[in-house]
Parts: sequence; structure tokens; C-alpha cells
Amino acid sequence: MPSPARSALAHIAFSDLVVLLRGIFERHGTSAEVAAVLATNCASAQRDGAHSHGVFRMPGYVSTLASGWVDGRAVPVVEDVASGYVRVDARNGFAQPALAAARGLLLEKARSAGIAVLAIHNSHHFAALWPDVEPFAEEGLIALSVVNSMTCVVPHGARRPLFGTNPIAFAAPCAASAPIVFDMATSAMAHGDVQIAARAGETLPPGMGVDSQGLATQDPNAILNGGALLPFGGHKGSALSMMVELLAAALTGGNFSFEFDWDQHPGAKTPWTGQLIIVIDPRKSGGESFARRAQTLVAHMHEVGLSRMPGERRYREREHSALHGVAIAEQELAQLRAMTGD
Amino acid sequence: MPSPARSALAHIAFSDLVVLLRGIFERHGTSAEVAAVLATNCASAQRDGAHSHGVFRMPGYVSTLASGWVDGRAVPVVEDVASGYVRVDARNGFAQPALAAARGLLLEKARSAGIAVLAIHNSHHFAALWPDVEPFAEEGLIALSVVNSMTCVVPHGARRPLFGTNPIAFAAPCAASAPIVFDMATSAMAHGDVQIAARAGETLPPGMGVDSQGLATQDPNAILNGGALLPFGGHKGSALSMMVELLAAALTGGNFSFEFDWDQHPGAKTPWTGQLIIVIDPRKSGGESFARRAQTLVAHMHEVGLSRMPGERRYREREHSALHGVAIAEQELAQLRAMTGD
Repeated sequence: MPSPARSALAHIAFSDLVVLLRGIFERHGTSAEVAAVLATNCASAQRDGAHSHGVFRMPGYVSTLASGWVDGRAVPVVEDVASGYVRVDARNGFAQPALAAARGLLLEKARSAGIAVLAIHNSHHFAALWPDVEPFAEEGLIALSVVNSMTCVVPHGARRPLFGTNPIAFAAPCAASAPIVFDMATSAMAHGDVQIAARAGETLPPGMGVDSQGLATQDPNAILNGGALLPFGGHKGSALSMMVELLAAALTGGNFSFEFDWDQHPGAKTPWTGQLIIVIDPRKSGGESFARRAQTLVAHMHEVGLSRMPGERRYREREHSALHGVAIAEQELAQLRAMTGD
Repeated sequence: MPSPARSALAHIAFSDLVVLLRGIFERHGTSAEVAAVLATNCASAQRDGAHSHGVFRMPGYVSTLASGWVDGRAVPVVEDVASGYVRVDARNGFAQPALAAARGLLLEKARSAGIAVLAIHNSHHFAALWPDVEPFAEEGLIALSVVNSMTCVVPHGARRPLFGTNPIAFAAPCAASAPIVFDMATSAMAHGDVQIAARAGETLPPGMGVDSQGLATQDPNAILNGGALLPFGGHKGSALSMMVELLAAALTGGNFSFEFDWDQHPGAKTPWTGQLIIVIDPRKSGGESFARRAQTLVAHMHEVGLSRMPGERRYREREHSALHGVAIAEQELAQLRAMTGD
């Protein structure tokens, strides 16, 4: 993850950052409920050093709201479909408030049935995916989520882009430590990281993407301007990206990454697709506690020489932020304050 | 997938191959029920050109049964845990008969709850994973399965092997065509393919594995003799492999890939671990039929230049086998006939 823009750093308390972002969301047309959910989500990413999904995203949120592309006041409609199935129509609003609205029912079903699925459609997801799964693991549950995005990835063996960056996130409880969490784009690189590299004038490693002619490039601007990303891991990452389209769009009733057209909404940045979350209650598995078994696996991973678990950097940054405040480039903080319009 | 050994090819009707393999399993100590399930599974892989899991596996099955490592007569114990959760103790037998024993209950739960999970433990999986998921898609359901195996993969960033090849398989219905199915090792290469390359004296592409000193090698024998495989796609494939350990072992109550010790059973080849299968009923999703949406996705994948869908080669080989018989090297067929002991 690239570091914040190369300027002096300010430090701000997490709660103050949430208040600041909430004000921006409300100022630009969201309801108080939506503002609270998105502000906490975005501030958490900044706090954890996940800068491609931190305050870096705020101009995109604001321009999208201004464009009329997304409904910042949408009230999600939750449908109790079956003993293990919850469906939510996000009503052209953001995915996170839809998850928040259905979360209680999803938890209840997962604990009762042993497994439950939440299918969100008609939703916009513009954030990291790990904040959606980590809280389930904190409650002792296993969670897996996929979300599709917008056409920018060339399927392995094809010539033109079709898939989104289509991330997969997973969270599981682990005894005597924070949950095990990962969140990976199925593209070779996350779109936000390409944008950050472009802004910083950096060159990418080879194998990340192609230019508008379909030729390999290491220039992030060439990828962003008519080029495309490649899947990670060749045909395997490509198959996983296809699976994400099937689960997050075909199954939920949401758009595929290539189906929405925002040409009439200049400034729109948020993919209008779907999201799937599967939650499993490991207490149904019998035998030794799942969390203790997970701890055993982690201990063995360290024993064979692993120095850093997936998600570990986020926890370290989180701890640092709790002590010293959340780091933001002075320039970004000034921009945020300007966005409140006060 | 490498082709069968370089010798003259025989062709045998699928049903005759099943009968032949069933005889071998029974001759070497399995029950008639177990023999029927494993023979069909193994013959199907051979039929579909998935040679690393076809009759190539028979000597391993036979030596494992002879070693006393696996119980070929085990009767799986199915437990109805919750409205979406089925648990099976395979009783130190094979995973496929455990799946067969629980399949009816799993289907019933998935159709009623919208999603259901099957957790198998105390099981041996020595076959391809796609035969476990494809039949669900043929019945209009979506299936995802993971199984862990035996220590032979170095976690990304570690020095020594810990994970198994830990495949992930997925199947989904698709209108007007066979199901969309993939089955991928989370290692850079499947273990069976390394064995086949070693037998054929072939050199591997770079990036597949390391030798006993932990140094990169393209020699399949160096990987098999004290060396190890690498995960596919670097840290992302490695995280997925970790997820497979958590779901297939920690959640089910099975062994991690590094936990079993078969030293007292020379000839044993089958990993004694666990398997997880998640089945979703897309009819719960509302809106346009999932299978028609999947068909739309596939059409677009072809439109951007994709020449071959995942799983497509297997279907082509299957069709060819139906017309001409299942291809087997003469030498392998003779070996099989010798194994029946007639």
C-alpha cells in the first residue's frame, strides 16, 4: 500500500476524523444514517494505513453524490427469504448501509442455521472489503465476502477488459489474537493503488496491466487511460474473478461489472453492482474450538518462517493510530475541511 | 494437464472402466459401496482427460489400502447439526463416500434454507475436486468446495513447506450449456501434475517450486524429493491456501495438512484431512434466473476474446470419450488388469 501523499503529516483522533467525514457526507447529500456508516468505514481504512480506501476516496464520494449517480438517502429494503438467506435491495444506495440494515438478521440466521448468506443488489461499493467481514470474526464467526466492481480487468486468455477488480475478503476468529483477515483484489493490483501510484508518479512492477493497445505497461496512467489491469495469478485469478461476477452479480440480482453506464453522470465513480457475504458459525463444527485451531495454524506458519500474517500490518497501523492519532497529509486534511463547506 | 504416458493408447468404454476399477478397489479391501463411488470418480477423471487424477492414481490407492492407513470399509456417520449444517465423520475412510452419504440431506437443506454447508472430517481425499461440485450445478445449485492435503507448499514469505496443494473448486449452472466448473490447486501446480512430469522426464516452467535447500528449481524430482511447491500468485494464493486449511481442517474438525504422520504406514499416499462444501440455491435470489445470467456473462467473456472457458477442455474430452471410448495407455491398462488379481 503506498504511503499518503508526500507532504507533511497531520495527526487527528479517530473520532474527530469520523465527525469530519460525517459532516462531509451529510453536506453532500447523504442521510445521517448513511453518513455515519460511510464515515466510520472510510476513517477506519485511513486509521489502518489502507490509504487507497481512506480519505483518498472522499473526492470520489463527493463527485459521485453530486452527479446524482447514487442515492445517498436510500433506505435499504431487507427481505427474509429463507432460514439461511437474506436479500437486500440497496435501492441504488451504498452497500455498507445495506449490510448494516441486514446485519442483525444475518447474524441470527448464521447462529441458528450454522451458515447464512446475505445477497445485496442495486448497491454501490466504493470502500475496502475487510471492514465488512472483520466484525463477524470479532463475534466468533467466519465470514467470506465478494463484490464486483467495474470493467477494468482483462480475463486471462481474452483481449479486452470485462471483469472488475472483484475482491475477495475473508475473516476468521483466532484465539489470543485479533482475527485473521485478508482482502485481496483478484486483479494483479487494486484499482485504488494504481490511482495512488499515478498520483505519485510511480512506475508499477511488471505484470500488472496493459495499455489501450493491449500491450504490457508499467505506467499507471496508461492503465487508467484506456488500458486495463490483468488478473493476479494468470488463469486461476481470472477464474476467481469470474466466480465473483457470478456470486456478487448473477446470484444477488446486481449488475455485472460491465453492465452499468454512468456516461450521463459525469463525476460518478462508484460501481453499481452487488455483494455477497457468507457467514458460518464454527460452534456448529463440534470438536476443539475453531479459534484455538486457527491459533495452532498461525503458530505453525510462524514456525516455518512466516514473518507477517495477512492483515497484520493493518493491526499495527491501528495500534499506532490509537496512540498517536490517525496520520493524514496536511494537504488532504485541508481538502477535507474545505469539503465540509463551513 | 500432461497426456497419458507415451505409449500406444487403448480405448475402453466408460462403463467397462468403472467395472474394472471397482474390481480393483474391492480386491484390495474396500466395501462394494466405497468401490462403486471411487471407481466412478476415478474413471470420470480419466474420461475427462484429467490424467493426474485418473487411473494414474490407482497404484496409490492400492498401496494406501495395503498399508492399513485408510479404512476402505468405513461407514460414514452423518450428523444433522442445524437447518443449514451437516457434519460427517468419514471414520478414517474416503471423503467421496462421506459426501455421497450426506448428499441427500445437504441438497434438502440447501433448497430449504437457501444455503447449506457440509463439513467432512476424518477423511481421505485423493481425487480431483471438480467431481464433488459439478453434480450440484447440474441440479441448478451453486457449489464451492475446499479440501486440504499434505505439507508440500511453502507459505509466501516463509522458508519451509506447511500448506497442502489445497484446491478450491466451484460449479455453477449455466443456461443452454454445461455447468461452469473450475478446480484449482492453490499451489502453483497440482501435486499429481508434478508426479506426471517427473515420470515423463519433463522440466517445469519457472516459479513452480523449490528444492530441498529452498532454492528455485524446474526439476519435478527435486520438488518431490525433499523440495516443495510454491503457492500460485504469491501472497494472494498463499492467503487462499491458508483459508483452505481453516475451512477444510479447523472448521470441520479434520487434520491440518501438517498434522498427520503416516510413517508407520509405508505405501500410504492419501492425505488424512477434511473437506468443506457450501451449496447455494440461486432460486432464492429472485429476479432473472441465475443460469440465464451466467449465460450472459459467458457470452460477454467470449465477446472480449476468451477462447476457452474453465472446464471446457474436460467437456470436450468427455464428448470424445463417449464417442470413441476412454483413452488409456496400453501399459496402464495392462497394469490395471494385473491389479485385479484375476
